[in-house]
Amino acid sequence: MDIKKYQRDLARFAAERDWDQFHTPKNLSMALAKESSELLEIFQWLTDTQSAAIKEQKEEMLRVSEEIADVFIYLVRLADKLNIDMEAAVARKMEMNSAKYPVELAKGNAVKYNRRKRRSG
Amino acid sequence: MDIKKYQRDLARFAAERDWDQFHTPKNLSMALAKESSELLEIFQWLTDTQSAAIKEQKEEMLRVSEEIADVFIYLVRLADKLNIDMEAAVARKMEMNSAKYPVELAKGNAVKYNRRKRRSG
Amino acid sequence: MDIKKYQRDLARFAAERDWDQFHTPKNLSMALAKESSELLEIFQWLTDTQSAAIKEQKEEMLRVSEEIADVFIYLVRLADKLNIDMEAAVARKMEMNSAKYPVELAKGNAVKYNRRKRRSG
Amino acid sequence: MDIKKYQRDLARFAAERDWDQFHTPKNLSMALAKESSELLEIFQWLTDTQSAAIKEQKEEMLRVSEEIADVFIYLVRLADKLNIDMEAAVARKMEMNSAKYPVELAKGNAVKYNRRKRRSG
Repeated sequence: MDIKKYQRDLARFAAERDWDQFHTPKNLSMALAKESSELLEIFQWLTDTQSAAIKEQKEEMLRVSEEIADVFIYLVRLADKLNIDMEAAVARKMEMNSAKYPVELAKGNAVKYNRRKRRSG
Repeated sequence: MDIKKYQRDLARFAAERDWDQFHTPKNLSMALAKESSELLEIFQWLTDTQSAAIKEQKEEMLRVSEEIADVFIYLVRLADKLNIDMEAAVARKMEMNSAKYPVELAKGNAVKYNRRKRRSG
Repeated sequence: MDIKKYQRDLARFAAERDWDQFHTPKNLSMALAKESSELLEIFQWLTDTQSAAIKEQKEEMLRVSEEIADVFIYLVRLADKLNIDMEAAVARKMEMNSAKYPVELAKGNAVKYNRRKRRSG
Repeated sequence: MDIKKYQRDLARFAAERDWDQFHTPKNLSMALAKESSELLEIFQWLTDTQSAAIKEQKEEMLRVSEEIADVFIYLVRLADKLNIDMEAAVARKMEMNSAKYPVELAKGNAVKYNRRKRRSG
């Protein structure tokens, strides 16, 4: 399914409930940040090993799936309310990232390019 | 483009840079929350009117588009690292939301169903 | 009560429960961000008028108070684990803010100084 | 210095700049969440060992101190705008936590009491 189909489905869902009055860009940015933080709560006290082992825990995985879906839903809604073409935005950002993190410089190094640059010169 | 295609493209991008060592579910949940919060900064001091008017400001809209793409990218990566089928997760959540917020009860009311229920008795 | 007293009380609370193993700076930054986001949930669908009227709602105010306390507690713990003198850090930041936002330039203008500067020059 | 003194100093700082119009509880909750997330960015790609070693990195420590101060400043402002006595709120929460996490049950266990309870019973 492509992203535009989700935008249409979620717009209809909100319209049927008369929720567009609540879905201002500002309010949606808050809901998005809130839902993203739910994922922090799941992982915050886990070691890296435990964090990888979560795949075997059915109940926790259901919870993660739900939170991921919530983030996606608010993200799509926010893009829709601002008439942003999410697929185009993602494509552009992926190109920017390719230019910003060339393989030969970024290999095995997660530090942001601009910070790396600032330090080296 | 469907979501699985993004998963594959982003997995390749990370593998080429040897970034899978950094992309633990825990770390990705942090990056996701951080990028979501960038959107808060854009809207935090704006009135609702100003927040709607942002559509006319080219520079701000570019910034919003970039942040939305960043959130999407980390979200897709997180789902991928946990072998979560994002499309299935979103479909399930949309069904849950339909059941949780029936049109006749949720119309014009943004309060969460469980809280509404708790209050009404 | 001064902040250092809170640091000591919270350090003892964690030590008694053998929680220092969980309270790495990284984990505490996650818990802090999570608790901050709980406040977003309270305000996300409210208009500015409703957001001001929350002062009259006893149940909501209790919830806000609890979340504010949670943020404070994790913030103090994080500072403590990194040996940061919070009072000195806040004093320094307040001086920086005074220099960054001089009254005559910042009056009635919430835009960040660096962004304002970038635009005007 | 006690927390009420910070409330007064920050209230005066905002009043001098005519910033109370921006400092609604809703807007302050956004600024608070944004600043908390800045700390995520600092720790997101670090291992636990690296996260502990940050204490030796002067530049990073300055950055952490600044972000901690920012979180504190917005937290105090939010409490002040809602007439919340932060010291009382923190004292009450610390008592609640003592009752919720008794030493003999919580020792070496970071899982939330309510979740632990749900599972065991």
